[in-house]
Amino acid sequence: MLSLDKIKDAEKVLSSAVRKTDLIYASTLSKDSKVYLKAENLQTTGSFKLRGAYYKISQLSEEQKKKGIIACSAGNHAQGVALAAQKNNIKSTIFIPSTAPISKIEATRKFGSEIRLVDGVYDDAFNEAVKYQKETGAEFIHPFDDEDVIAGQGTIALEILEQIDDLDAVIVPIGGGGLISGIAYTIKTLKPECKVYGVQAKGAGSMYHSIAISERKELPKVSTFADGTAVKMPGEHTFDYCQKYVDEIVLVSDDEVATAILALMEGQKLVAEGAGALSVAAAIFNKVPIAGKKVVCVVSGGNIDVNILSKVINRGLLKAGRLSDITIELLDKPGQLKEVSQIIAEHGANVIRVRHNQGGENTDINDCFLKISMETKNLRHFCEIKKALQNAGYKVMSEYNREEPKE
Amino acid sequence: MLSLDKIKDAEKVLSSAVRKTDLIYASTLSKDSKVYLKAENLQTTGSFKLRGAYYKISQLSEEQKKKGIIACSAGNHAQGVALAAQKNNIKSTIFIPSTAPISKIEATRKFGSEIRLVDGVYDDAFNEAVKYQKETGAEFIHPFDDEDVIAGQGTIALEILEQIDDLDAVIVPIGGGGLISGIAYTIKTLKPECKVYGVQAKGAGSMYHSIAISERKELPKVSTFADGTAVKMPGEHTFDYCQKYVDEIVLVSDDEVATAILALMEGQKLVAEGAGALSVAAAIFNKVPIAGKKVVCVVSGGNIDVNILSKVINRGLLKAGRLSDITIELLDKPGQLKEVSQIIAEHGANVIRVRHNQGGENTDINDCFLKISMETKNLRHFCEIKKALQNAGYKVMSEYNREEPKE
Repeated sequence: MLSLDKIKDAEKVLSSAVRKTDLIYASTLSKDSKVYLKAENLQTTGSFKLRGAYYKISQLSEEQKKKGIIACSAGNHAQGVALAAQKNNIKSTIFIPSTAPISKIEATRKFGSEIRLVDGVYDDAFNEAVKYQKETGAEFIHPFDDEDVIAGQGTIALEILEQIDDLDAVIVPIGGGGLISGIAYTIKTLKPECKVYGVQAKGAGSMYHSIAISERKELPKVSTFADGTAVKMPGEHTFDYCQKYVDEIVLVSDDEVATAILALMEGQKLVAEGAGALSVAAAIFNKVPIAGKKVVCVVSGGNIDVNILSKVINRGLLKAGRLSDITIELLDKPGQLKEVSQIIAEHGANVIRVRHNQGGENTDINDCFLKISMETKNLRHFCEIKKALQNAGYKVMSEYNREEPKE
Repeated sequence: MLSLDKIKDAEKVLSSAVRKTDLIYASTLSKDSKVYLKAENLQTTGSFKLRGAYYKISQLSEEQKKKGIIACSAGNHAQGVALAAQKNNIKSTIFIPSTAPISKIEATRKFGSEIRLVDGVYDDAFNEAVKYQKETGAEFIHPFDDEDVIAGQGTIALEILEQIDDLDAVIVPIGGGGLISGIAYTIKTLKPECKVYGVQAKGAGSMYHSIAISERKELPKVSTFADGTAVKMPGEHTFDYCQKYVDEIVLVSDDEVATAILALMEGQKLVAEGAGALSVAAAIFNKVPIAGKKVVCVVSGGNIDVNILSKVINRGLLKAGRLSDITIELLDKPGQLKEVSQIIAEHGANVIRVRHNQGGENTDINDCFLKISMETKNLRHFCEIKKALQNAGYKVMSEYNREEPKE
């Protein structure tokens, strides 16, 4: 059973192995409210998962420890379990679907785990892990539905309450629900007036929907950019804790998550993965009633593939109108490139790249296209430039169908 | 004059306005040595500059404060001065060359400064600022060559010494030298056995060269990706402090800086700008003798344009052989796409993008090209795949001329 004593015990056990992560005031994210970030992306292994895994292992008997431990995961849980096992000098075997990103597999291997790559998806790896568990008797470490694991994650709330006074609300990402269960239990026990909000991605709202119908239900499929939270069904324990202790669960879109990742990177110099940025997405898109409040967003992890990060940056800039691609049809007369450049410069945009193409598939043989990428201030700024070019007689196409904002 | 008392006074003054930034053990950067990061990129305004500017302003007389302050900068100093002025309720006027990135200008404007955009480069803005200073009598805040500014930056060393025991060395980026002057003075006063290393970018090694000839010399030009350190000539004070208190200054290349930025982002979930990553570049490329030592790298700032960040990611991945583009010439017979895919899959690479082009400029009309982007483990892995494809009879071209590593 979960208890405050257990969570305090976990805090003691973790003190030598886990970083007490910083609580950072996020000036760039604070408008109507005061937003603080609990930076678990700066935790060793890049996510909070080390806490639960480490405490779980510490509670095993010597005999269990000798048999080793097993986990099935392609992500943060794998790394958390691997490092926790290494620090406790016990053998760990991690089952990973072969479709997992190479960077995550390598990161897990570094901590000395035996890696079993299983052809197929998560369920295939899980089946292999269960088979292996039966053969060896090794302990299976559940990623979330385990009281010890939950107690480990609850230590985050103890730290938060020590790091900040007069806290009004905590916003926490939800996958299987282990993180929020530990945090909500701790907060509601020590500071019941503080709100606890949970956030899921729209494409993986298993806890959201189960709580709505007061019954654990499996989603037929999950699909989200916040891949660390792609869980089809809440745990038994975690469902109960969410029902009892969480004030509200909200959903955010993948686009909102991408915007939050960019805001964290640009404004706060922190790299967050999709799952880690759920809380910030909920805050900046006003999904929870926090105006005028002092709020902590738990940034649960930062293990995002840098390839994906690069795409998030580009998409975010395009969406915000800060990066703009336009194609201009030039007529066959001199001086046009100069004129176009001048109009853009007069409006204060920075040209980043120019490509000049003679001809194209559906064009006259004399036509010439100018493709310009430029740095603009925002959508309104982009629209001003587009209009100025049109007023000067140019035919302007933009790759993204963008309307001038109303506001 | 700089003194320990002055730096301790600065610490008191700053306590209400400046974050005491976290000192983070960087497990992913620690191989032969133990590397810790002083995360000044997580400082308010995204760099250490707030410290010096804030302390400088606090030392102005009431009369001086009434006249307001001036700064000339396109970067971190501008933001530091702007926020420091805002917090002290005094007027600030910041001169910025119009060529500065929009994001930096907007960030400065947010703190309530009056922005004067000056056509041209830094020197043009500087001349305007000097003219304005003469007209108004406002106080000009020097970015580095000022004892109060240096004292403010020195508070970083007080924090480091409080945050870590048995420190062997500190590695510090150098632009004009204000940061390292404050840090070196403090360290050598309180813990003289601790080494202080400075790092500059090869294209902007003004302090490096001046120290080498024991004389302040202006570089004819500076050019580096670490734009925050692009200073042509060391300050008078800062040159003296570096001569007296800095053990060694080393140079790193832009490529090394880019690799350091990627390592910080991926391994430590921190966004650093070029200048901020200089210290880490020196550590991971063994520019300083730190094997077996306990070392703090000062990550001085994180204000990097996200467009540039996106390029750094791509370049870093390509260089490390973790992202590989190859072009394969397919012959006009069936089943080849399947065979190529199979060879790649058998070698455990992840295909990210496939483009299939019929024909091209210098090719036979029947030729067909397959352009594949894939995620690979490292250069060796990429070369294995390339060889396997060649052994199967394919003509393989890779965009980057990459040799198999020897080792």
